[in-house]
Amino acid sequence: MKQMLIKSKTTSYPIYLGTDLLKRLEQYINPSYTSVLVITDQTVATYYLDDVMNALKQFSVHHIVIEPGEQSKSIEQFYDIHTKALSFGLDRHSLIIALGGGVVGDLAGFVAATFMRGIDFIQIPTTILAHDSSVGGKVAINHHLGKNLIGQFYVPKAVIYDVATLRTLDKREIRSGYAEIIKEALISDEAFFNDLLLTNIYQTDAKTQVNHLYHGMRIKASIVQQDEREQNIRRYLNFGHTLAHALEQQLGYGQLTHGEAVAIGLLFALYISANEYGNKHTYLVLLDWFKKHDYPLMIPKINVNDLLNRMKVDKKVVNRHIQMVLLKSVGQPELKCFTDREMVEYITSFFSELMKGIDK
Amino acid sequence: MKQMLIKSKTTSYPIYLGTDLLKRLEQYINPSYTSVLVITDQTVATYYLDDVMNALKQFSVHHIVIEPGEQSKSIEQFYDIHTKALSFGLDRHSLIIALGGGVVGDLAGFVAATFMRGIDFIQIPTTILAHDSSVGGKVAINHHLGKNLIGQFYVPKAVIYDVATLRTLDKREIRSGYAEIIKEALISDEAFFNDLLLTNIYQTDAKTQVNHLYHGMRIKASIVQQDEREQNIRRYLNFGHTLAHALEQQLGYGQLTHGEAVAIGLLFALYISANEYGNKHTYLVLLDWFKKHDYPLMIPKINVNDLLNRMKVDKKVVNRHIQMVLLKSVGQPELKCFTDREMVEYITSFFSELMKGIDK
Repeated sequence: MKQMLIKSKTTSYPIYLGTDLLKRLEQYINPSYTSVLVITDQTVATYYLDDVMNALKQFSVHHIVIEPGEQSKSIEQFYDIHTKALSFGLDRHSLIIALGGGVVGDLAGFVAATFMRGIDFIQIPTTILAHDSSVGGKVAINHHLGKNLIGQFYVPKAVIYDVATLRTLDKREIRSGYAEIIKEALISDEAFFNDLLLTNIYQTDAKTQVNHLYHGMRIKASIVQQDEREQNIRRYLNFGHTLAHALEQQLGYGQLTHGEAVAIGLLFALYISANEYGNKHTYLVLLDWFKKHDYPLMIPKINVNDLLNRMKVDKKVVNRHIQMVLLKSVGQPELKCFTDREMVEYITSFFSELMKGIDK
Repeated sequence: MKQMLIKSKTTSYPIYLGTDLLKRLEQYINPSYTSVLVITDQTVATYYLDDVMNALKQFSVHHIVIEPGEQSKSIEQFYDIHTKALSFGLDRHSLIIALGGGVVGDLAGFVAATFMRGIDFIQIPTTILAHDSSVGGKVAINHHLGKNLIGQFYVPKAVIYDVATLRTLDKREIRSGYAEIIKEALISDEAFFNDLLLTNIYQTDAKTQVNHLYHGMRIKASIVQQDEREQNIRRYLNFGHTLAHALEQQLGYGQLTHGEAVAIGLLFALYISANEYGNKHTYLVLLDWFKKHDYPLMIPKINVNDLLNRMKVDKKVVNRHIQMVLLKSVGQPELKCFTDREMVEYITSFFSELMKGIDK
């Protein structure tokens, strides 16, 4: 088992990373909680809810099962969980456990952050993608005008990452998770990036997965610890996300997984970077790697102005100008603002080139 | 003008207290905000919105006017303000100003706390009652099962308290505000309590008001600074509130003002204290003072079990037992848990005695 301590301004919390941690879950949980509420989704519940409920028998334990997918991060679902938590009798000394991927973590975390002004929560990520949201204390729900627009910074008490739960992931979820790992490598570690380019992500063993996850989380933790509230360098973690968020929304959540949208967003950011800094190598090798791993890069025709407007309600907008994270080279991110007109041109030429690249 | 600095774990903020501060509002606001959103209610808007908008002309400034009253602290109103803020183009570098009483402060503060994971806000209290919520960083909305159940701890950048705005308060609002000042005195300062007992709160001048507010906020600040997240002594501030919250809800918000409900809650807590510690003097002098100031103490017949159940969804419940703040003597609060049965008995005998006391 690997372990790392994530420090925030006022507190710190451990991440436990290894195999078969779920079986000894009770070891990681303070026995003094008055009750425990496990929040999970239907998919994860099928595989792991019984294990978790059994491991927590000693507590007064309740559970809520939500529908899988981004649409569950709604204000209605958020309120409904509050209602259920109150009717279960949760109090300020109760614990919420988020058992699942990023959606469950974001939603359950935001409920924990706001239930009676904040109670403890523990994350048990069951996807590769969730390694990303396990570090950094971002919790949120969606607004119909944009993703993650209602939320806060609220760190878990602990993250218990059992890679045995990753065995049940399908290819889509594996590539979705690896898009974020690739992003972490791109913004800070060329050797790790090159290592990933040589990996077949559908055929990794538990040990390799632990290493990749550990490496990715280390990169993220190091950035977040320097800038918890996203005043400066934390913005680099949004590399690829300005387009990705808009794309997910425009196509409707569920069409592309978050990571699949990020993959296209990474290519877009690298495409602009190539244009601004004059080196297209990274764009090309990554495009090639995405194609080899069957990332869906062919997307339906979209209205460029709608997409632009969605990019502009993003949280990273500064004075109504879109601020992009670009890459001077691997490991060297930089922020740059663009006018609407420049953005429209880039979006148009990027998608046209991407479609050509895929036809080949 | 008086000024005090409120310290929290990670930050600190100033409270400016005096007359005619609204006129020079722009002096207190950092000019670098990309835009400003003023949130207020219809009543306050009539008197002060124009002044505030004029004083902020230099900014890109927007406003939202909500209905006055507790029912505006709903999840729907919360979401609606997010929608409007997004459509106004607010970003992470925008400011929200809460212009009004506790309802506006709680709601606007919680919006600020969660808008794109938190933007700055400034409170401009326009009621006496709001002195209480100006200190301590509690922001929240209501759940249909209980008051302030969804919220967080989030401190303003500054509080600008212009007592000139208190001139437009009616008697109801004055006594509502003074109930919290009385509470602050009761839990920590006998001399201040005795001083208040000699005050006619409907005939105070600006200077006396400034002093009372300053004194009340000092007491609260001193407690909050020792216990920001309500782990121990901050609970004393809930003196009188367990019954008050339940009563407000049961009678329907608007029947009693918050402070009027607190007045009854204070008497209830003092009634139990008299019973537990054997001294009824404080109960009697306070009852007398409330009567002299026309506090409404005669309430409609209520179902005791319903009231009990509402008290039990309060945030201060520990393991389903109601925890009351009691007073051994003025300035000496103490926590005590009660079983349902004990509570029912106390509620019944208290209301029966109160009705008798009022008939006299």
